[in-house]
Amino acid sequence: MPLPDVDLNSLAASATKLKKQYRDFQAQQLKLDMTRGKPCAEQLDLANPLLSILDQSDYLDASGVDCRNYGVLDGISEAKTLFADYLQVSTDELFIGGNSSLGLMHDLVARCISHGAADSEQPWAKLEKIKFLCPAPGYDRHFAICQHFSIEMISVALLENGDPDMEHIERLVASDASIKGLWFVPKYGNPSGLSVSDQAVDRLAKMPCAAADFRIFWDNAYNVHHLTPQHVEIKNLLRACQQAGNDNRAFVIGSTSKISFAGAGIAALGASRDNINWLCQHVAIQTIGSDKINQLRHLRFFKNLQGIKDHMLKHSEILAPKFQTVDRVLNAQLSGKHLAQWSKPKGGYFINLDVLDNCATKVVAMARDAGVVLTAAGATFPYGKDPRDRNIRIAPSLPSVEQIELAMQILSVCIELVSIEVLSDKQKT
Amino acid sequence: MPLPDVDLNSLAASATKLKKQYRDFQAQQLKLDMTRGKPCAEQLDLANPLLSILDQSDYLDASGVDCRNYGVLDGISEAKTLFADYLQVSTDELFIGGNSSLGLMHDLVARCISHGAADSEQPWAKLEKIKFLCPAPGYDRHFAICQHFSIEMISVALLENGDPDMEHIERLVASDASIKGLWFVPKYGNPSGLSVSDQAVDRLAKMPCAAADFRIFWDNAYNVHHLTPQHVEIKNLLRACQQAGNDNRAFVIGSTSKISFAGAGIAALGASRDNINWLCQHVAIQTIGSDKINQLRHLRFFKNLQGIKDHMLKHSEILAPKFQTVDRVLNAQLSGKHLAQWSKPKGGYFINLDVLDNCATKVVAMARDAGVVLTAAGATFPYGKDPRDRNIRIAPSLPSVEQIELAMQILSVCIELVSIEVLSDKQKT
Repeated sequence: MPLPDVDLNSLAASATKLKKQYRDFQAQQLKLDMTRGKPCAEQLDLANPLLSILDQSDYLDASGVDCRNYGVLDGISEAKTLFADYLQVSTDELFIGGNSSLGLMHDLVARCISHGAADSEQPWAKLEKIKFLCPAPGYDRHFAICQHFSIEMISVALLENGDPDMEHIERLVASDASIKGLWFVPKYGNPSGLSVSDQAVDRLAKMPCAAADFRIFWDNAYNVHHLTPQHVEIKNLLRACQQAGNDNRAFVIGSTSKISFAGAGIAALGASRDNINWLCQHVAIQTIGSDKINQLRHLRFFKNLQGIKDHMLKHSEILAPKFQTVDRVLNAQLSGKHLAQWSKPKGGYFINLDVLDNCATKVVAMARDAGVVLTAAGATFPYGKDPRDRNIRIAPSLPSVEQIELAMQILSVCIELVSIEVLSDKQKT
Repeated sequence: MPLPDVDLNSLAASATKLKKQYRDFQAQQLKLDMTRGKPCAEQLDLANPLLSILDQSDYLDASGVDCRNYGVLDGISEAKTLFADYLQVSTDELFIGGNSSLGLMHDLVARCISHGAADSEQPWAKLEKIKFLCPAPGYDRHFAICQHFSIEMISVALLENGDPDMEHIERLVASDASIKGLWFVPKYGNPSGLSVSDQAVDRLAKMPCAAADFRIFWDNAYNVHHLTPQHVEIKNLLRACQQAGNDNRAFVIGSTSKISFAGAGIAALGASRDNINWLCQHVAIQTIGSDKINQLRHLRFFKNLQGIKDHMLKHSEILAPKFQTVDRVLNAQLSGKHLAQWSKPKGGYFINLDVLDNCATKVVAMARDAGVVLTAAGATFPYGKDPRDRNIRIAPSLPSVEQIELAMQILSVCIELVSIEVLSDKQKT
């Protein structure tokens, strides 16, 4: 029976029972961390051959470049071939960076601010105000970059089909030249798990923007991170932008952080030749080049895109049962009670959980007090403020299936208890 | 006989002979690159065990951190112990970065500009003008960072004892609050090969600065890069600054780029706790952490500072003969002619060559046309402008001894020819 229809006395009776369960969980003094999308040890183990794949004579790339020495700002040519296939761009539309796609994105924003983008009339810092569009719920580290650089964030709804609210976006960018960017995780989104439609890609590519140097930060972090055999494919934003005559609009970002090693992978940017040239001019001041030996390691291990795809099947075998466990326990505990909705993603690292309005902060706090640490409520929205206080991001990759089972039982109890409290208050007033 | 004392006819006779030599060199169509301080293959070979030093089960640090995964922003604790010894700071005065000390320095400057230093009242970008002091000749990439960020460079003389002109510096910083920084390679300098005196370190640490957030970028790139058994030691700038009550003044930078692999080493910053905290707050927005697996590789290979020192002895055995060859050939060709002076560095990567005034650009161009590529004349001065046009940087690390022998013969012929031209013009007028 839906809890919102239950009378006060019955709610109180349920609460008494649930409180006892909660106290029993507390007594176990658990420590379950589900805060971040960190790979688990078993996933990392899959890439252990990377640790020892080079022997002492293996340091030249195919063209004879000594990867131990200085040089090659934008990546060795074999790495470009691999990442061109991975990001679906050509090898001269590529920049191979260090171990952090977040670093690539941060630095892109920083350079636009200090010097302007490739086609900016002036550095963004010269403008009175800069704004970015932030489909939400979204990735908290994108929002942190905006806050760090005093970029005003405009929250845009992420629709149930996985598209950002295109009408809203089109209206905003058409008239406001201070809107310089948009963040988006287009595939198996963080935290939605949803993927963007071809139509939305086309509209993003084509839409007239008051700012000629408008940029889409297309954080394709979960490009090959499938959880089911039904692999989602999304339309190529860079090509769509080129077809629309907005060649420089797209910054397409990817990395192997959740393919090889999270702390020792390779990040890459796909963008127009103008954008890549612009970036290289800036990066040449910052560094003589990224770690080419690590590029070589990845090439020796994965060989090509098929190698990455085969590898990701093994990731899927580890992750899928964890996601299924979240779904199974939430279903068993909450089904039919009308207290929460959650996503069943076909890929990525997160399950998006929406509880009743004004309950998320309390649920997360209560779970924490029973040893289950979740991403802070609100973190998935600009400025950390979820206007309905209902969104919770669940990151099931790191804990074991057994830990997830337990954590979701605890979370369910917390959701039900907080909901009863809120529903009771509502009935009383 | 000193060439400046030779009569016109004799100069012309010499020139005829030298021109023939020059044409013979040209006919050989040589390609000798002495532009940059790149290690040679034999030096890199010394660190080849790094390529395969980890086996597939070796990815945990001593405290159990999984170096494959996300996390640990400022470096694993064992790496901090090693670099604390290396930079002579304590482990909580350290930040371990990626593979590029240039990147550390660039980002430090960028952060000061966009947000201000730890003790700035406002971002440097809010100031009408920012100036840096640049002891010259110095490192061209330092100067490039200034130009990139529109920081005005004030050239300061580097004295013959290796100290920057302290009186000039003290006078400037005392009264001009727009002077926010100073670049310096304090040991085996680039290109001077000289090292700073204890007195100058103390004066830099103590000098009253109009800018409370004045920073010394102490690029200690050649800390253990000795070329003779007489190891130069310099005074600890961070400690001197702390003793003078200017704790935050020093940014001490080092890396293993010229110890392990130039493209795949580890960079580190030593600074006050306030500075490190400030940096970590900024870096946390940019990345989740540097490559910890590469930190582990370096630890397994070098083990400790003694390991690094032992390793650098082997570097010295490869490099010293190259430096000696430069000195020997220049001596044989130019001794007594009063056309050039050059340094005999006890460490580092460069020989500083001063030719007659107004000759450096011509000499470098002439050498290039005979297949010897040197760092562009002027590059060692702010804005690429050597006021006397006499400084040439020689980088002997990459070519073989035989190539250096030949390159220096060609360079000597070029120096003599250009000098004769200039001296003849002088006599005629």
